[in-house]
Amino acid sequence: MSGIVATYRIQCAPDDVDRIARWIAIEQTVEVPEALVDEAIIGKVRTIEPAPGRPSENSANAFDIAMEFREDLAAGHLPQLVNLVYGNVSLRHGVRLIGLELPDSLLARFAGPRFGVAGLRELIDVRDRPLLATVLKPRGLSATEFARIAGEFAEGGGDLVKDDHNLVGPGPEEFEARVQRCQEAVTAANVRNGRRCLYVPFLHAPAEELDRQAAFCVGQGVRGVMVAPMVLGLDTVRALGRKHGLFLLGHPTLTGGLVGPEHGIARGLLYGTLARLAGIDISVFVNAGGRFAWTPAQCRDIADHLRAPLGALKAAWPCPAGGMTFDHLEPMIREFGPDTVLLVGGALLTAEPTVREGTRKYQAEITRVLDR
Amino acid sequence: MSGIVATYRIQCAPDDVDRIARWIAIEQTVEVPEALVDEAIIGKVRTIEPAPGRPSENSANAFDIAMEFREDLAAGHLPQLVNLVYGNVSLRHGVRLIGLELPDSLLARFAGPRFGVAGLRELIDVRDRPLLATVLKPRGLSATEFARIAGEFAEGGGDLVKDDHNLVGPGPEEFEARVQRCQEAVTAANVRNGRRCLYVPFLHAPAEELDRQAAFCVGQGVRGVMVAPMVLGLDTVRALGRKHGLFLLGHPTLTGGLVGPEHGIARGLLYGTLARLAGIDISVFVNAGGRFAWTPAQCRDIADHLRAPLGALKAAWPCPAGGMTFDHLEPMIREFGPDTVLLVGGALLTAEPTVREGTRKYQAEITRVLDR
Repeated sequence: MSGIVATYRIQCAPDDVDRIARWIAIEQTVEVPEALVDEAIIGKVRTIEPAPGRPSENSANAFDIAMEFREDLAAGHLPQLVNLVYGNVSLRHGVRLIGLELPDSLLARFAGPRFGVAGLRELIDVRDRPLLATVLKPRGLSATEFARIAGEFAEGGGDLVKDDHNLVGPGPEEFEARVQRCQEAVTAANVRNGRRCLYVPFLHAPAEELDRQAAFCVGQGVRGVMVAPMVLGLDTVRALGRKHGLFLLGHPTLTGGLVGPEHGIARGLLYGTLARLAGIDISVFVNAGGRFAWTPAQCRDIADHLRAPLGALKAAWPCPAGGMTFDHLEPMIREFGPDTVLLVGGALLTAEPTVREGTRKYQAEITRVLDR
Repeated sequence: MSGIVATYRIQCAPDDVDRIARWIAIEQTVEVPEALVDEAIIGKVRTIEPAPGRPSENSANAFDIAMEFREDLAAGHLPQLVNLVYGNVSLRHGVRLIGLELPDSLLARFAGPRFGVAGLRELIDVRDRPLLATVLKPRGLSATEFARIAGEFAEGGGDLVKDDHNLVGPGPEEFEARVQRCQEAVTAANVRNGRRCLYVPFLHAPAEELDRQAAFCVGQGVRGVMVAPMVLGLDTVRALGRKHGLFLLGHPTLTGGLVGPEHGIARGLLYGTLARLAGIDISVFVNAGGRFAWTPAQCRDIADHLRAPLGALKAAWPCPAGGMTFDHLEPMIREFGPDTVLLVGGALLTAEPTVREGTRKYQAEITRVLDR
């Protein structure tokens, strides 16, 4: 294969599938009436297959169309790759992007995750086990209170403590105060116990302020930030991470609208492949069994795409989340393996008697599960 | 109303609606277990109503939940407003954002469209009629060939000629050559016939290059650019337009995944309200009756939101598109009125005997419809 192969699952009657395949081939490349079509440029339909297991589930039929696009049509960058493989076709309901194969020559244009699995292990100095992460919340606490939680989590043996994605504003002062206090608290705990827990602030600001806030974080000793790729823009966060040498933890806010059952982009591609192209080192998604009704297979698919070969791009960390508790640790480890960030928010913040003791208990459980 | 009121249409059983309303109120603000909830911060459920006309259409039921959030939770900026009203709730299928009311004090933080309806009329010097726009395509033509089309369209009396959204790459040289040649051709035609047709290039590049390319456009005399708000980021395009004093034409590429029937964001909010907050002056959407199966009511709703009062923000132009032809002009004008950009791509490019003559014929048809 020399080109980009995008696979679309189409909801349509059998008689329509060839016409729709031809439409996609044209719409995504030249978007002109047939009379003007240049066959050398438009997509090439490689295969059309009935979608597995569908006819009995649905009165309509579903087909998988594998379409090859010329590599140069992606212009070697992420905004155009997205535009090419899921631009105008997104506007016709019942067209879902379920597969994406990219040639190595195109992948070589992407730096991918700066740290990835191995790099982050080195940074935190944790070799073989999953990482334990928590979330600073709820909104309404002061910077001092957040710093106390962050410090206790670090003291208790936690690995990553991130801002909640609701912790934004009211102004940049709150952000700077929180970053400074939390980073100080985590650093102090690290010095005391010889560990390297990391504090990860949420960078979420007007476009004009992102650069300054990222530089502020770096100045405070922060090594990575949480970002919302589909709100700020996939390529905006990629460039931000590169410029400031930060690792990126991607939050899925807003993205649920893009992963519908018969439309949108398959989760593995959005939270896995595209996330890695955007330089995401840790990709947060909602785990099966939590507050959201995602299935184990969907979550596995995300983890698979974060780890699958993708040119020379580093593997990234899956970070299942969303209502995870102590009891989810063992199934999460069994499901996703050691190269996983185990994100426990509310359950850890309410741990008795303290966050510090709770964190110790959670880390002990991780060790217990791994030793079995 | 002092806060932000977001209305969600929820697919659920009647017994579940109160629980889901409470869940949204917490999830979008503090995202913690009930024990930690601060009632002063979380969303307030204002009303819960059965969705109009639903019970007979669907075995599940649907409800409209109006939720008020404290204004300060939006932090006065677009990334956080999006995160607040459709962040984590997007991850639970069957939650659609269908209404958004914003207090004037929040709206005052947004500059909105720089030109809007009145400003663009002044720029183009066309007072009362709809604007006629076309698209430079197909990909594969040279800068000289695109410039010839642009020049002919301007000579024939066209108002706006934009790059196709597939015209990206392979490198910045092609972009610069096209911008220079097309702008020259349009300017030359304007000088000849005393008009002010505008050329609108597609700004779509890696984040690091956007600024330089925008500055290049300004240097060439370009007054506005086309952008893909959901690919580059809503706030990225807002900041780009402000910095360079450009008007923005928003293209809907990728956004189809966000406007599902039972999930995502209502079209009026996405292509209307949020687009204006992002400074979009002209909002492209796919019109009913073209290549995509959107309904007249959905399209009307977009136009309504582009024109509705929204603090002191200017009204923006609806730009129905997607397979429009000569025969669509009259129904488009009847449907959307004079403050509309009529975008005709392929049909105009294949007009006989020339694009110039075709453009004259289209403008004559617009005059004919308005005079009736």
